[in-house]
Formats: sequence, structure tokens, C-alpha cells
Amino acid sequence: MTHFEKVQQWLAEHHYQVGYLSNFKNIQYFTGFASDPIERVLALFIFPDQDPFIFAPALEVEAVKETGWQYPVYGYLDHEDPFAIIKDQILARVKNPTRWAIEKGNLNVSRFEELQQKFPTATFTGDLTPLIQQEQLLKTPAEIEKLKIAGKWADYAFEVGFKALSTKRTEQDVAAEIEYALKKKGITHTSFDTIIQSGANAADPHGVPKKEFIKPNELVLFDLGVVFDGYISDASRTVGFGKQLSEKSQEIYRVCLEAQLTAQAAVKPGMRAEELDKIARDIITKAGYGEYFIHRLGHGMGQSEHEFPSIMEGNSMELQPGMCFSIEPGIYIPGVAGVRIEDCVYVTENGAEAFTHTPKELQLLPLA
Amino acid sequence: MTHFEKVQQWLAEHHYQVGYLSNFKNIQYFTGFASDPIERVLALFIFPDQDPFIFAPALEVEAVKETGWQYPVYGYLDHEDPFAIIKDQILARVKNPTRWAIEKGNLNVSRFEELQQKFPTATFTGDLTPLIQQEQLLKTPAEIEKLKIAGKWADYAFEVGFKALSTKRTEQDVAAEIEYALKKKGITHTSFDTIIQSGANAADPHGVPKKEFIKPNELVLFDLGVVFDGYISDASRTVGFGKQLSEKSQEIYRVCLEAQLTAQAAVKPGMRAEELDKIARDIITKAGYGEYFIHRLGHGMGQSEHEFPSIMEGNSMELQPGMCFSIEPGIYIPGVAGVRIEDCVYVTENGAEAFTHTPKELQLLPLA
Repeated sequence: MTHFEKVQQWLAEHHYQVGYLSNFKNIQYFTGFASDPIERVLALFIFPDQDPFIFAPALEVEAVKETGWQYPVYGYLDHEDPFAIIKDQILARVKNPTRWAIEKGNLNVSRFEELQQKFPTATFTGDLTPLIQQEQLLKTPAEIEKLKIAGKWADYAFEVGFKALSTKRTEQDVAAEIEYALKKKGITHTSFDTIIQSGANAADPHGVPKKEFIKPNELVLFDLGVVFDGYISDASRTVGFGKQLSEKSQEIYRVCLEAQLTAQAAVKPGMRAEELDKIARDIITKAGYGEYFIHRLGHGMGQSEHEFPSIMEGNSMELQPGMCFSIEPGIYIPGVAGVRIEDCVYVTENGAEAFTHTPKELQLLPLA
Repeated sequence: MTHFEKVQQWLAEHHYQVGYLSNFKNIQYFTGFASDPIERVLALFIFPDQDPFIFAPALEVEAVKETGWQYPVYGYLDHEDPFAIIKDQILARVKNPTRWAIEKGNLNVSRFEELQQKFPTATFTGDLTPLIQQEQLLKTPAEIEKLKIAGKWADYAFEVGFKALSTKRTEQDVAAEIEYALKKKGITHTSFDTIIQSGANAADPHGVPKKEFIKPNELVLFDLGVVFDGYISDASRTVGFGKQLSEKSQEIYRVCLEAQLTAQAAVKPGMRAEELDKIARDIITKAGYGEYFIHRLGHGMGQSEHEFPSIMEGNSMELQPGMCFSIEPGIYIPGVAGVRIEDCVYVTENGAEAFTHTPKELQLLPLA
């Protein structure tokens, strides 16, 4: 059964007459058409028992057709009322559309209210968000192949980045070198802004590269990934730049590495997501750094780095073959140093395989 | 009166007890704290008569404090219920919070429903979206200074890009050269993915650079911009690569240029946005290319390229000094060629000043 058919079946089972997808990434997942409409309206309408249609800004209509989309696509010009056109097209298909399912995790209140005005007798109780998340939870072999290729490019990016480390380069410069090397190889997008943080800068887990020169004899944290054919990689490595790392830096690295390796080796189908988080967290807590591990162990990933399952306390979801997520313990000591080691993996019948293979043992790179 | 105070005043005037900002870009506008929380919850709560607070993922709390934010910030861990904590903090400030204003253009239905559950007797009729858009509509001199600097970097990017044109480089390669040069100069973000399209590729107005070599004796379209201190630039130039452009390419360039220059020269306070669109559109239509100009003349810009005013048919908003927007007529002939010429401008007391100054007359660059 295709993704489409599963949504159609779900709509039919729940007696929904109209399914409205508004998240452009999910529209890409279902149709292959990839475009962020920003403030314009892009929508995919699915019905339980008839063909879907796409509604798009006029300037995107040709691009939709070029993807091979075989169903109708309707465009609107900037001065037209998109929901008026949508209403006409819905009414042309469904006589009295009162039962809707929408993407509650995406549709904003303003558009929701417009929809309510256009269809004043309708109810919008159906939520497509969890259904789509469930659909995307277990990756197919074809998806895993793409994730592996994206992972190989992340390994290449680390290689470039490690070589680029120099006291004459800023963190930003190193990020620029990595992204340039990737673009020259034909990779058009990174999964997110490439993160390079050295020394105490790495203690900010969501930090950005600074215009500061790479510090010698400090840990340097890399967090990066690429988009390959709509699927991402996401990996972190922390390396020593210079041979004279402080004892503290070496210690937090050892603890973080043990947490990462132990958790990754422990993945098994049937295990609960929160158990995996606890395995890593206990190691870090026991070593006395629990308070410095201030985020979940991992996040689901695939088309983005923010899918399910979330590997965290309180999530009792059982791991299953085909699930893909990050395992990324981190220790961040404000003003001192930060370390994070991350592979994304997919669950197999009896364990987990990583998408990235850059060594995780502490590397002490020569000063340059 | 600060932006904050204006929102407070508006809340008081309309008897709203709580204002909930959810759009991370608007939170940046009000607080200086810049972070995309993606699926996590980041919120700014404003009250008519007491101090605001920020609610953020735990791993962002330190970063909020580092911005100099002088009011409370509360964090939540991934396994905690963010709206439960928010509820407690709201109730600690407002005894019976029944009248809310939210960002309807941003808040999704799922979070809206969570909010409704936590505050079952509350109404959420207030919409902060238009208020904030109005606040952001007229740029201050300080904002215009930043936009000018961002514009200068766009001019630099064109310079790099024009020099990088070569039949041995793909469109992607040229984009990579531009972004690399910018990053080496310390520009961390482009406003959007740099667009380079040559020949018929440029006929797709939302196209992406391809892995195709730059075609000689064709028009090449550049659309690019950078982020400088939270403010963007956005400009397009189309150049000839080689001296032997087709007559058709030269003709559409001439028409587009006339439309752009005429519209830019026509800007005046008091003019309606739709009038400006019509000035450019009439020129293109008269020349027989109206059907190939398939988008509005321009969009407002400032912190992003999707602000107000929208320069399009049906928008009767009057232009005022301090408004900033693009003027970007385009002619896209599928399978043949595309041209777009774009400056962003700010309205002055008697006209408009552009943020970018790269010449707009047709440049025929030597083949390389």
C-alpha cells in the first residue's frame, strides 16, 4: 500500500471527507514536489475515494507538473483569494464537506480560521500530523540507502573539516571550507548550519561558529550534515586540536564516548526509547556530569533532523527495525569546554547500524 | 515608545491580559534572542501592565541570558510538558487569564488546542500578527543602516558571481563560489539559497541552480542576498554571458529593465502599492510579455524577504517613508530564457533609495 493509499484508507475509516496537507515537507514526501511556499499557500488535498489535487502559487504550477504529478494542480495569483479557489475545488468533489482532517502540527490559526469561515458547518477534528509521523517512522530500504549516502557525505565533511583546522582560521572559516567543499562536489544543501565550536564556545549546545580563531590544545566540536535526495545526515565529532588537552577535556571526552558507544551497542528492537536515553545518561551522571548533559539523547531523523522517535525520558515508544535516530550524548561545562559525539543509526533486526563511520576514539590532530 | 511598549499599550487598549508570541523571528525582533526552536517551544509572553518573560528549551536558557535579557526566562527539559510550565507562570502573574492575544499567523492548531485545554475558559480572539507586521512595516533609520550594509554585501556577491561565470563551472559551482567568498568575509548566512540560472533554466522563477554548465551566449540570472545583523538584502541581476545574445533575450531584457527603472523612479509616499505594480506590469504587458510576468512586482523586506507591503494588484496600502520592499519585474519564457531585475528600496520623503547599486544596464560579460 502506498503512503497515499494509507492516508486514503485512514480517512475512509474515520469518515473524513477531506484531508488537507499544509506542511510543504510532507507534501514533498507524498508528491515529490519540493518547495517552501513561505507565506504563500501550498496544499495537497486527499480524499478517501477520489483523486487528490495540489493547490499551489501560480509560479509553482509548472514545477509541480515537471515532477510527473499525474493529478490536477491548481494555481493562484498573488492577488487572488487562495481559500476561495480551494473552496470551489473541494465543492466540485465533495457535496457537503463537513468532516475534515488537517495537519494540526503545521496549519496556523489564521489559515485555520479562514478555512472555518469558508466551511462554517465543517468540523476539523481529524489530525493528520500523527498519522504522517507514524508513516515516516519506519524507513524503507530505499530510504535507508539514501540516508547511508548522506552519511558518507558527512564523513567526507569531517575529513575536510579536520584538515582545515588551523590557528589561522576562525570557526566560521572552517565551516566555510566544509560547505564549499561539499558544494563543489554537488551537495546543494546542508541539513543545518554547519557547527564548529572550539574550547569553551562548545559549551553552548546550540551554538554557532564564531569569528574567533581556533584555539590550540582545546577540544573542537563539529556538528554537521548534508541533504542527499531529500534525506539528511547529522553527525557530531569532537576532536583535540593539539596534543596538550587539559585533563578535564580528556575526562569529559572519555565519559561522553563511553556513553555514546554503550548506548549505540545497546540498541535493540523492543527496547523503549527512554531506556536508551537512560543508559547513556546513567554513565554521564555516575561520572558526575549529569547536570551538564542538558538535552535528550537523540531525535528521530530521515527527511529532517526532527522526526520521531525522540530518545528521551518519558518516551515509552518501543524501538523497531527501520527507525532512524541520533545517539548524541553531550557534556557542556560553561566557560570550560563542550563535547558531543553523535551518530545517527537505523534499527536492524538485532541492533543498530550507523550512517556515519568517522572514528569516535579521541583524535588529537596536529597543530597547524 | 519601544516596540514592547506599543504591544503592551495595544493589549491594554483591547483588554487582553496575555500576549503570546510564538514566531521565533518576532521573538528575535523584540528581545534580540535569535534561535529557531524547530519543534521545541519558544515563547515570549507580554502583559499589559507587568514584565514579560521568555519560555525556552532548557538548552537555550543560557543563550537567552547572554543577550542581556533583563526579565525572567524559564526553561523546560525535553521530557517536560512545556504548556504546564507556561500555565503555572501565567497564573502566577494573572489571576484569571481569560482574554488572550496570540500570533495567529504563526501558532499551529496543535499548540493552540493545547493552550485551549490548559485555559479552558479563555478566549483567543486577539491576533498579534497584524500588529507586529504593522510595527515592522516602517523601518527606523538604524534598521535602514543595517539594510544598506546588507545591500553592499549583495553588490559584493554579484561582483564575485560575475567573475566566476565560466563554461567550465556549473550553476551550482558559481553559487558555491559566491557563498564561499561571503563566508570568508564573515557573512554567516545568506537570505536564501543563492540562485544562479542560465539560459532556459532561468524561466523557472523559483528555480534552483543546476549541475549544468553555464551556457555561453545566454542570459544568466542571479538572485541573492545576505543577512547582516539580522537584516537582509535581496537583489537580482541578469547578465549576458558572451557577446552573442539572441535578439529575443535582448528584447526581454530591455522590456524588463524599462519596467524596473520606471517603477523604481515612480515610487512616492502616498502612492498605493497596487499602482506601483501596475506601472511595471503595464510596460511588460504593452510589450507583449504580460503572460510571462507571473508574480507580484515586489515584497516587503527587512528581517526577512517576506514582510509587508506586498507590491501587487489588489493591495491599496499607501506607501510611506520607511517602508522597504523589492521592485522585481521578471519575464520568464518557458524553454527560452528568463530575466529578472531587482532592487530593494526604502521609501523616502519624495522617492525611493535602493540598497543595492550594481549596474542594471545589460552587461555582456566576456566568455571564460
